[in-house]
Amino acid sequence: MRAECKLGTLGKHFLLDLKDCSSGLLDDIDFIKEVLISVAKEAGTAVLGVSFHRFQPQGVSGAVLITGAHLCVHTWPEYGYAAIDIFTHGDSFRPDEAARLIVEKLESKNPAIVELKRGF
Amino acid sequence: MRAECKLGTLGKHFLLDLKDCSSGLLDDIDFIKEVLISVAKEAGTAVLGVSFHRFQPQGVSGAVLITGAHLCVHTWPEYGYAAIDIFTHGDSFRPDEAARLIVEKLESKNPAIVELKRGF
Repeated sequence: MRAECKLGTLGKHFLLDLKDCSSGLLDDIDFIKEVLISVAKEAGTAVLGVSFHRFQPQGVSGAVLITGAHLCVHTWPEYGYAAIDIFTHGDSFRPDEAARLIVEKLESKNPAIVELKRGF
Repeated sequence: MRAECKLGTLGKHFLLDLKDCSSGLLDDIDFIKEVLISVAKEAGTAVLGVSFHRFQPQGVSGAVLITGAHLCVHTWPEYGYAAIDIFTHGDSFRPDEAARLIVEKLESKNPAIVELKRGF
Protein backbone atom coordinates (compact mmCIF):
# COMPACT_ATOMS: atom_id res chain seq x y z
CA MET A 1 0.00 0.00 0.00
CA ARG A 2 1.38 3.38 -0.89
CA ALA A 3 1.62 5.95 1.85
CA GLU A 4 -0.93 8.19 0.15
CA CYS A 5 -3.66 5.59 0.61
CA LYS A 6 -3.29 5.38 4.37
CA LEU A 7 -4.19 8.89 5.38
CA GLY A 8 -7.05 10.92 4.01
CA THR A 9 -6.84 13.64 6.64
CA LEU A 10 -3.50 15.12 7.59
CA GLY A 11 -4.65 18.20 9.42
CA LYS A 12 -7.62 19.57 11.31
CA HIS A 13 -8.42 23.20 10.77
CA PHE A 14 -10.78 25.12 13.03
CA LEU A 15 -12.01 28.50 11.82
CA LEU A 16 -13.33 30.67 14.63
CA ASP A 17 -15.39 33.73 13.77
CA LEU A 18 -15.92 35.31 17.15
CA LYS A 19 -18.51 38.06 17.29
CA ASP A 20 -19.63 40.17 20.23
CA CYS A 21 -16.27 39.91 21.97
CA SER A 22 -15.02 42.41 24.52
CA SER A 23 -13.60 45.25 22.38
CA GLY A 24 -11.12 46.25 25.05
CA LEU A 25 -9.66 42.76 25.14
CA LEU A 26 -9.39 42.59 21.34
CA ASP A 27 -7.25 45.73 21.26
CA ASP A 28 -4.86 44.58 23.98
CA ILE A 29 -1.87 42.98 22.23
CA ASP A 30 -0.39 41.64 25.48
CA PHE A 31 -3.67 39.98 26.40
CA ILE A 32 -4.20 38.45 22.94
CA LYS A 33 -0.63 37.15 22.89
CA GLU A 34 -1.03 35.68 26.37
CA VAL A 35 -4.28 33.94 25.39
CA LEU A 36 -2.78 32.20 22.38
CA ILE A 37 0.46 31.23 24.10
CA SER A 38 -1.32 29.97 27.21
CA VAL A 39 -3.67 27.86 25.08
CA ALA A 40 -0.65 26.37 23.33
CA LYS A 41 1.07 25.66 26.64
CA GLU A 42 -2.05 24.19 28.23
CA ALA A 43 -2.08 21.72 25.37
CA GLY A 44 1.44 20.73 26.38
CA THR A 45 3.07 21.73 23.13
CA ALA A 46 6.31 23.61 22.51
CA VAL A 47 6.12 27.14 21.13
CA LEU A 48 8.40 27.38 18.08
CA GLY A 49 7.80 31.00 17.12
CA VAL A 50 5.64 34.01 17.97
CA SER A 51 4.79 37.11 15.91
CA PHE A 52 2.36 39.81 17.02
CA HIS A 53 1.58 43.30 15.83
CA ARG A 54 -0.77 46.05 16.97
CA PHE A 55 -2.18 48.33 14.31
CA GLN A 56 -3.02 52.01 14.60
CA PRO A 57 -5.57 53.12 15.55
CA GLN A 58 -6.67 49.64 16.61
CA GLY A 59 -6.52 45.92 15.94
CA VAL A 60 -4.10 43.10 16.63
CA SER A 61 -2.69 40.40 14.35
CA GLY A 62 -0.66 37.48 15.51
CA ALA A 63 0.69 34.05 14.68
CA VAL A 64 1.95 31.36 17.05
CA LEU A 65 3.77 28.40 15.55
CA ILE A 66 3.78 25.38 17.83
CA THR A 67 4.72 21.72 17.57
CA GLY A 68 2.07 20.14 15.41
CA ALA A 69 -0.08 23.21 15.06
CA HIS A 70 -0.44 26.92 14.46
CA LEU A 71 -2.71 29.57 15.89
CA CYS A 72 -3.42 32.82 14.05
CA VAL A 73 -5.52 35.78 15.10
CA HIS A 74 -6.77 39.03 13.58
CA THR A 75 -8.97 41.31 15.65
CA TRP A 76 -11.28 44.19 14.81
CA PRO A 77 -12.03 45.84 18.16
CA GLU A 78 -14.31 48.36 16.44
CA TYR A 79 -16.63 45.49 15.48
CA GLY A 80 -16.05 43.30 18.52
CA TYR A 81 -14.89 40.66 16.06
CA ALA A 82 -11.93 38.29 15.92
CA ALA A 83 -10.97 35.79 13.20
CA ILE A 84 -8.94 32.94 14.66
CA ASP A 85 -7.46 29.88 13.03
CA ILE A 86 -6.35 26.71 14.73
CA PHE A 87 -4.54 24.27 12.50
CA THR A 88 -3.33 21.00 13.95
CA HIS A 89 -1.58 17.94 12.68
CA GLY A 90 -0.59 15.04 14.87
CA ASP A 91 -2.13 14.26 18.24
CA SER A 92 -0.23 16.63 20.49
CA PHE A 93 -2.82 19.38 20.33
CA ARG A 94 -6.61 19.23 20.82
CA PRO A 95 -8.14 21.91 18.59
CA ASP A 96 -11.65 21.56 20.04
CA GLU A 97 -10.40 22.24 23.54
CA ALA A 98 -8.23 25.12 22.30
CA ALA A 99 -11.25 26.63 20.53
CA ARG A 100 -13.36 26.38 23.68
CA LEU A 101 -10.70 28.12 25.75
CA ILE A 102 -10.22 30.94 23.25
CA VAL A 103 -13.96 31.65 22.99
CA GLU A 104 -14.14 31.80 26.78
CA LYS A 105 -11.11 34.03 27.21
CA LEU A 106 -12.17 36.55 24.54
CA GLU A 107 -15.67 36.62 26.07
CA SER A 108 -17.38 36.09 22.71
CA LYS A 109 -21.15 36.02 23.08
CA ASN A 110 -21.65 34.90 19.49
CA PRO A 111 -18.99 32.45 18.33
CA ALA A 112 -19.14 30.51 15.08
CA ILE A 113 -16.77 27.58 14.70
CA VAL A 114 -16.23 25.61 11.53
CA GLU A 115 -14.09 22.50 11.41
CA LEU A 116 -12.36 21.57 8.19
CA LYS A 117 -10.27 18.57 7.35
CA ARG A 118 -7.09 19.20 5.40
CA GLY A 119 -5.30 16.68 3.26
CA PHE A 120 -6.35 14.52 0.38
CA MET B 1 -25.73 53.34 10.59
CA ARG B 2 -23.76 51.26 13.01
CA ALA B 3 -20.31 50.21 11.93
CA GLU B 4 -21.30 46.55 11.94
CA CYS B 5 -23.76 47.13 9.11
CA LYS B 6 -21.20 48.52 6.70
CA LEU B 7 -18.93 45.55 6.30
CA GLY B 8 -20.04 41.99 5.89
CA THR B 9 -16.63 40.67 4.89
CA LEU B 10 -13.58 41.69 6.84
CA GLY B 11 -11.10 39.12 5.61
CA LYS B 12 -10.48 36.84 2.67
CA HIS B 13 -9.11 33.44 3.46
CA PHE B 14 -7.62 31.18 0.80
CA LEU B 15 -7.05 27.54 1.72
CA LEU B 16 -4.55 25.83 -0.57
CA ASP B 17 -4.33 22.05 -0.52
CA LEU B 18 -1.42 21.40 -2.84
CA LYS B 19 -0.96 17.81 -3.94
CA ASP B 20 1.71 16.29 -6.18
CA CYS B 21 4.30 18.90 -5.23
CA SER B 22 8.03 18.36 -5.53
CA SER B 23 8.90 16.41 -2.34
CA GLY B 24 12.43 17.78 -2.28
CA LEU B 25 11.18 21.34 -2.29
CA LEU B 26 8.67 20.63 0.50
CA ASP B 27 11.44 19.42 2.81
CA ASP B 28 13.71 22.41 2.20
CA ILE B 29 13.03 24.89 4.99
CA ASP B 30 15.12 27.64 3.37
CA PHE B 31 13.23 27.27 0.10
CA ILE B 32 9.79 27.25 1.76
CA LYS B 33 10.68 30.31 3.83
CA GLU B 34 11.98 32.12 0.76
CA VAL B 35 8.78 31.34 -1.18
CA LEU B 36 6.47 32.76 1.46
CA ILE B 37 8.59 35.82 2.18
CA SER B 38 9.10 36.59 -1.52
CA VAL B 39 5.36 36.31 -2.14
CA ALA B 40 4.75 38.75 0.69
CA LYS B 41 7.36 41.15 -0.64
CA GLU B 42 6.11 40.92 -4.23
CA ALA B 43 2.77 42.09 -2.89
CA GLY B 44 4.54 45.13 -1.50
CA THR B 45 3.71 44.44 2.11
CA ALA B 46 5.90 44.69 5.20
CA VAL B 47 6.93 41.48 6.95
CA LEU B 48 6.10 41.81 10.66
CA GLY B 49 7.27 38.42 11.89
CA VAL B 50 8.55 35.07 10.63
CA SER B 51 8.57 31.63 12.32
CA PHE B 52 9.72 28.43 10.62
CA HIS B 53 10.58 24.96 11.83
CA ARG B 54 11.80 21.78 10.20
CA PHE B 55 10.69 18.51 11.71
CA GLN B 56 12.60 15.24 11.91
CA PRO B 57 12.66 13.16 9.85
CA GLN B 58 10.85 15.50 7.46
CA GLY B 59 8.34 18.29 7.07
CA VAL B 60 8.31 22.05 7.45
CA SER B 61 5.90 24.35 9.27
CA GLY B 62 5.94 28.10 9.06
CA ALA B 63 4.05 31.32 9.62
CA VAL B 64 4.68 34.75 8.11
CA LEU B 65 2.83 37.69 9.60
CA ILE B 66 2.62 40.65 7.23
CA THR B 67 0.77 43.93 7.09
CA GLY B 68 -2.84 43.07 6.41
CA ALA B 69 -2.33 39.35 6.03
CA HIS B 70 -0.73 36.12 7.17
CA LEU B 71 0.67 33.13 5.35
CA CYS B 72 0.98 29.72 7.02
CA VAL B 73 2.40 26.50 5.65
CA HIS B 74 2.67 22.87 6.73
CA THR B 75 4.34 20.38 4.42
CA TRP B 76 4.33 16.59 4.21
CA PRO B 77 7.18 15.76 1.81
CA GLU B 78 6.39 12.03 2.15
CA TYR B 79 3.01 12.67 0.52
CA GLY B 80 4.07 15.50 -1.79
CA TYR B 81 1.43 17.57 0.02
CA ALA B 82 1.36 21.08 1.46
CA ALA B 83 -1.43 22.84 3.35
CA ILE B 84 -1.14 26.60 2.95
CA ASP B 85 -3.30 29.41 4.26
CA ILE B 86 -3.47 32.94 3.00
CA PHE B 87 -5.52 35.28 5.12
CA THR B 88 -5.87 38.90 4.06
CA HIS B 89 -7.65 41.95 5.31
CA GLY B 90 -7.36 45.34 3.69
CA ASP B 91 -6.33 45.94 0.11
CA SER B 92 -2.55 45.79 0.40
CA PHE B 93 -2.30 42.12 -0.49
CA ARG B 94 -3.84 40.16 -3.39
CA PRO B 95 -4.51 36.63 -2.14
CA ASP B 96 -5.40 35.26 -5.59
CA GLU B 97 -2.08 36.37 -7.03
CA ALA B 98 -0.22 35.07 -3.96
CA ALA B 99 -1.96 31.69 -4.35
CA ARG B 100 -0.98 31.49 -8.01
CA LEU B 101 2.65 32.24 -7.23
CA ILE B 102 2.84 29.67 -4.43
CA VAL B 103 1.30 26.89 -6.56
CA GLU B 104 3.83 27.66 -9.28
CA LYS B 105 6.84 27.79 -6.98
CA LEU B 106 6.00 24.52 -5.17
CA GLU B 107 5.41 22.86 -8.55
CA SER B 108 2.07 21.41 -7.48
CA LYS B 109 0.50 19.39 -10.27
CA ASN B 110 -2.79 19.02 -8.40
CA PRO B 111 -3.72 22.15 -6.47
CA ALA B 112 -7.08 22.71 -4.79
CA ILE B 113 -7.90 26.26 -3.72
CA VAL B 114 -10.90 27.26 -1.65
CA GLU B 115 -11.78 30.88 -0.96
CA LEU B 116 -13.66 31.75 2.20
CA LYS B 117 -14.96 35.06 3.40
CA ARG B 118 -14.38 35.90 7.05
CA GLY B 119 -16.39 38.33 9.08
CA PHE B 120 -20.08 38.65 9.81
